[in-house]
Order: sequence, then C-alpha cells, then structure tokens
Amino acid sequence: MLTERMKKWRHVFKLDPNRTLSEKSLEKVCTSGTDAVIVGGTDGITYQNSRDLIERIAEYPVESVQEISAESAVVPGVDGYLIPVVLNSGSLHWVLKAQHRAIRKYGDWIPWEDVAALGYVVLNPESKVGRLTESRTGVGTADLTAYGRLAEHLFRMPALYVEYSGMYGDEGMVRAARRGLKRSRLFYGGGISREDQARAMSREADTVVVGNLVYQNLEAALESVRWVKETESKGVSGDQGIN
Amino acid sequence: MLTERMKKWRHVFKLDPNRTLSEKSLEKVCTSGTDAVIVGGTDGITYQNSRDLIERIAEYPVESVQEISAESAVVPGVDGYLIPVVLNSGSLHWVLKAQHRAIRKYGDWIPWEDVAALGYVVLNPESKVGRLTESRTGVGTADLTAYGRLAEHLFRMPALYVEYSGMYGDEGMVRAARRGLKRSRLFYGGGISREDQARAMSREADTVVVGNLVYQNLEAALESVRWVKETESKGVSGDQGIN
Repeated sequence: MLTERMKKWRHVFKLDPNRTLSEKSLEKVCTSGTDAVIVGGTDGITYQNSRDLIERIAEYPVESVQEISAESAVVPGVDGYLIPVVLNSGSLHWVLKAQHRAIRKYGDWIPWEDVAALGYVVLNPESKVGRLTESRTGVGTADLTAYGRLAEHLFRMPALYVEYSGMYGDEGMVRAARRGLKRSRLFYGGGISREDQARAMSREADTVVVGNLVYQNLEAALESVRWVKETESKGVSGDQGIN
Repeated sequence: MLTERMKKWRHVFKLDPNRTLSEKSLEKVCTSGTDAVIVGGTDGITYQNSRDLIERIAEYPVESVQEISAESAVVPGVDGYLIPVVLNSGSLHWVLKAQHRAIRKYGDWIPWEDVAALGYVVLNPESKVGRLTESRTGVGTADLTAYGRLAEHLFRMPALYVEYSGMYGDEGMVRAARRGLKRSRLFYGGGISREDQARAMSREADTVVVGNLVYQNLEAALESVRWVKETESKGVSGDQGIN
C-alpha cells in the first residue's frame, strides 16, 4: 500500500520531467538516502518526458512515484501514483473533475493499492501551479487548520500538502495546518535552499519535499537529506496513519 | 463510529424538518424497524425546525443523524452527522467550500467519530437539490462507475449516494455506480412509492432511503421497511467497509 509506505517518508525529492538532469546528478539524487522520488511538474509534462525520467530513475533502488497532473502523461509500472486534489483551487477541475475524468478513462486498470490522494493547499499566488489551479492563496491560519481537518476527516486523505512552490513559506501557516491533523501526514514543499530553512520546516512537517534546489544547487539539495533527517518533527500527526 | 454503524443500515427514513408530521406518524416511523432516521432537507431548513424534529425523534430508541445542509442549522447532541459532498455539482460550494467553512467555524467542537462524508451524485435535474447544487445530471453509466471509484479510493468515503430526489431512478445507473465500489456502501434514494420499486432498488443498493413517501402515504412508507429488509442486495460492496 502506497499510503502505508508514505508514512515512512521524511524527505522526498520532486523531479520535473520537463527539466534536464545529467545522469551523474540523477544518480546522486537517487542514492542520496532520500525516501522517495516524486516525478511531476506543472507545465510541459508529457507522456514521453515523464516515461523517460521514470525509466532512468528505475535504474536505482529508490522508490519512485508519479504525481499525476495530466491524464495523458500517466506512465504504467511506477511504484505509485499521487493524485493531487487542490483544496483551495478556484476551479472544480483541480478538485475532482480532472480526477473523475482520468478514473473514467483508466477504469479497471488502476492499481488502487498504489494510489494515494494528496490534499494540496497552494499558497504562492505567483507560482505556476498557483495560477494554473486558480488557487485562493489569501487564506489565514484558521483556514489552514480547517483544510487539515477537511483532508483528514471528510476526505480521509493520507496527507495534506502545504505547497509554497518556489517560495519559502510561512512556518506559522504550516503549524496551523498541523493543528488540523491527527493522523494524516503533513507535507511541506517550497523554496528550501538553506540548512536553516530545511531544519525549520522539518520541525513543522512530517515530510519535506525538495524540488527546485536539485536544479539550482545540487550539492545543497543532497545535503538537505541529512538536514531533514537529523531534525525531529514537533508534530504528532502521521504516527498512526489512516491508510 | 458512525461509519461503522452505517454498515448496518439497510433501510433508512429521511425526514424533512420543514414538513409537518404528527406525533402519531412520527412514532410509527421511529418504531417501524428502520435502521436510522436522517433529518435533513433542501429548503426552509433552520436551526429551530431541525432541533424541534431531532428532539421529537430522541424520544424513540431509533438512531437519528442530521444531514448538514446549512452550517447554521447544526444541532448538537444528535447520534451522528452526515456531510454531503456533491460529486457532480457544478459549484465548488457543494463539493468542499461550504464544508470547509463549517469546519472552520465549529473547529474543535466537531465529534469526528460521529461524522461521515456522503458522496452524492444527484441525478434529477428538476429536483430542488439538483437545481440548488447545479448538479450535472447528464451523465452516463461510465461516469457513475467513476464516481464510485472516486468516492471510495480518492476520498475514501464510507458511502456513495445515488440521489434521484423525488423521482424513481434508473436501475442501470445504480448498477453502474455499484461497479465502481468494492468497500464503500451504495445508498439509493428517490421516488420509491411501491413495493416493486423498493425491492428493485434494494437489490441494487446497500441502503435504501425513503423520504417523500412518509408524507404522501405513511402506510406504504412503513411497509417499505419490510420490502427492503426482505430483499437481498446483489451487491458485494459495503461488507468490508472502509471505516
């Protein structure tokens, strides 16, 4: 079960099929000690570039999962599939319509035990994902706490993902999301480029996602595995899991 | 846990706080052998009329749950709360915005163990609920199967509710929803007024909801408990439950 395996994810890398990474760099990422590599991005994602990257990652023993942003890019045979549900989107498309359409299309072929919904709250209005999903980013801490409860109790999602995509986030907002969670995990992603940032968000979240840094400063990205894993999370959610 | 108790619901009555029911009739409904009484409706629902009806039902040993259609009408102390999520709504309001707002408002006070999300597919375009929720009723069997999978696997809902509100539905559509379900329960509601209809939908669904008939023909409504309970469901979902 992917939802079970996710409970052990403390640090994950997110690689973009639409960006270039040398074989040497990919090897370092995959053998860094990270817990999983998520393949996904916001634009320029195709079946071809997704499959290429997934096949290259498959050479290494690390768990790889595809985050589905377009039904046309789904690659069979990955270890798992993450289905984003953008809780603060301004469009039904990113909440359930795209997901419904993909499910209708792939029907019986979906290996549900290796599929997990990820409840996103996208908080950087300037980011591509923020614009694409028309996310309502002008939310407060009470909203974050309520999103946590919504994700955990109504939709029984294995994880809530506070996504600042490209920008280092507000620790208070991440903490607010945590207050809404008892068993679902809390993912944080966005703008981590330094040790202090990696450690700060590792204290708030269960799982820290490092993406852009791989392409901007590979050495720091590789170091982030240690920064995150050495830090203890203050949170209590995620221990019991909802699977 | 409400989600556990729901697994035993075969027949339920749905009573509308905005409609009148004599004490004698209410007694008959509550002592009919039905598995639960759901209190809820589409318009004219207030805290006052909801509380009045819930307090009257509390005189009887039957399980009573409130279906929340307006956050202002939530009555404390009921046995459980059902939170509708209208999967084919044309508006985010009925999918998660109203739910998010209510969760933000009630915060820590929500007894989550007695709360369950109900994934609705509203199929009668002429019904009040269809118009209010701007439901996309022009869907086919493949859509229904996909809604089942979406409800069970992505949102891990305890039940999918195929709602024909006021109109007897298409058994083929209910069967299509069933194909998408392995563990979540299948609820059917809408237009049951005769024995053959009650028995037909009892074969397709796990839980049959009888509403209007209480107000139109109480004797037939009371008989429907037996019609439903005597009939065996062909379905296999709901046995294992997702709680």
